[in-house]
Amino acid sequence: MHRPTLEDVARAAGVSRATVSRVVRGDVGTATRTIERVERAVRELGYVPNSAARVLASGRPNTIAIVVPEPDERIFSDPFFGLATSGVSERISGTDMQLVMAFAPTSGRPTATIQFLLAGGVAGVIVMSHHRSDGLTRAALELPLPTVFLGAPLLNGDSEPARAHVVDTDNEHGGRIAGDRLAEVGVRNPATITGPMDMHAAVARLDGWREAMGQAGLSFSTFEGDFTEESGRLGVATLLDRDPGIDGIFAASDLMAVGAFKELERRGITPGREVRLIGFDDFAAADALGLTTVRNPAVDLGRQAVAMLTELITTGEAEESRVLPVELVVRETA
Amino acid sequence: MHRPTLEDVARAAGVSRATVSRVVRGDVGTATRTIERVERAVRELGYVPNSAARVLASGRPNTIAIVVPEPDERIFSDPFFGLATSGVSERISGTDMQLVMAFAPTSGRPTATIQFLLAGGVAGVIVMSHHRSDGLTRAALELPLPTVFLGAPLLNGDSEPARAHVVDTDNEHGGRIAGDRLAEVGVRNPATITGPMDMHAAVARLDGWREAMGQAGLSFSTFEGDFTEESGRLGVATLLDRDPGIDGIFAASDLMAVGAFKELERRGITPGREVRLIGFDDFAAADALGLTTVRNPAVDLGRQAVAMLTELITTGEAEESRVLPVELVVRETA
Repeated sequence: MHRPTLEDVARAAGVSRATVSRVVRGDVGTATRTIERVERAVRELGYVPNSAARVLASGRPNTIAIVVPEPDERIFSDPFFGLATSGVSERISGTDMQLVMAFAPTSGRPTATIQFLLAGGVAGVIVMSHHRSDGLTRAALELPLPTVFLGAPLLNGDSEPARAHVVDTDNEHGGRIAGDRLAEVGVRNPATITGPMDMHAAVARLDGWREAMGQAGLSFSTFEGDFTEESGRLGVATLLDRDPGIDGIFAASDLMAVGAFKELERRGITPGREVRLIGFDDFAAADALGLTTVRNPAVDLGRQAVAMLTELITTGEAEESRVLPVELVVRETA
Repeated sequence: MHRPTLEDVARAAGVSRATVSRVVRGDVGTATRTIERVERAVRELGYVPNSAARVLASGRPNTIAIVVPEPDERIFSDPFFGLATSGVSERISGTDMQLVMAFAPTSGRPTATIQFLLAGGVAGVIVMSHHRSDGLTRAALELPLPTVFLGAPLLNGDSEPARAHVVDTDNEHGGRIAGDRLAEVGVRNPATITGPMDMHAAVARLDGWREAMGQAGLSFSTFEGDFTEESGRLGVATLLDRDPGIDGIFAASDLMAVGAFKELERRGITPGREVRLIGFDDFAAADALGLTTVRNPAVDLGRQAVAMLTELITTGEAEESRVLPVELVVRETA
């Protein structure tokens, strides 16, 4: 089939090549009626602009894919996800690469996702927000494509992360400094609300916390949350019903800390006075509530993932793991 | 080049075909050491699982692409976006289609995005959150692919939406019932904080509101926001500084209404008493604040967009436009 050209569109629309070119580029200042005529001709002929056609013909993969689990309320309501993605986008924007996000099923083998990634257009992959239980982690580890994990990948049955190219937060140190701080401000009966234990970030934060508690000679109670606000609320309710004497809580994400904060207030307890509270992330909500928290460099994780991936794509190798530092942000609650 | 087979992997790993198959499927219950051996062989040989290879060979496009502007804080912090996407995902999940989100530049011609969409794997496109000013709208209208707009597309210089397949909220009626309600509860000196005037949703909500005001014989003042919380705050500050007698505000999105709510409280004004307030969307925040609002069926918009797109892909045609009804949700603020 003859591929329609700019000339074909100009002829069909009864305008000059320059006019077609202007309309196709999206330049302002062309009369609406002319734009409409050109657009109709473009549609009817199925014209593909030349610049796109040229790159198409070259066949070089130009897509960077962020792979995430299927969206539910959690993935878009957790600011971490948006911040890390904007860090990736910032570094890809303005290059000739196209950023896409591919949604993988939360259970079973992600056949359609793998098919998409291997179809030829994808130059590199960033895997985000993966859980041990999803088939995605294993599938992503097998990919014959440059792949970077944002957060260390756990496989079923393993407690240590699988070997992979990883950009991660120093989660263990984060848990450690949260525990140190609570001990330092005089907490004697602490508790922690952890993230889901099938995510390495949750395991590592708990490891660091446990170490701090051991050093301070404190025992603690635990509630396993899932990084959502609701699980933070439920965590406080469960922990305080079990032991009303709890005087300090480390919630391993800010969303959970917000839920914990609200549930404490609902019970007439002032966070920071009767019960000290520390979160993890340092989202806008933490500042608004006066929440002491551990700063998680989410945007920078996204940027660093692009840097590592670019290195993998261009040279075929990169350091195995890059760990970004955290710091304690002290506000009113601890 | 010889494409590595399951047998090649089994031989290299020194295990049976059945074991390789189990590991590749992600089944549990295989010893960790065995899994590692198989995975090493898979990586070293660049083995692609058969199911994926089969579909790859068939070459049938299996990707549905949601096209959105590049992510900044706005796109992920606006719940509308996440809700509409989860509606799309819900309908695609469990089929053999792959859902991806492609990020387009917010200005200039989206060449890399078009290249991605036309590279052959994409069966259909859903365009979300488009503005008149971005090159994306024009480019998406030209696509020789089944395309559905979530929200009517505006082109530069036009006040009427371009012809396209569209799923939309009845924005005009929403503005209308918000205006009717404020008039009904006795507001005499109303104002509106609109969305950005380069989005059709904002224009239509203002049209409906203007009609209600005309019918009630009320004049009103206007502030153009951009659907963010900060612009709602700024809107109230600007409007009340100009005219402290304002007694009713329609903020054309819940995020703006939240900003308006906070700025009213900061000025010692109780929303719903001295100043009535109505939002648009009915997100969780509206319920939490007792905000009267217009319910925007975001999840259902996503579902309906998939239904229309599926019709376009399978039959080549579909109704041009589907408009979903809105309703007023009365709470404390009006």
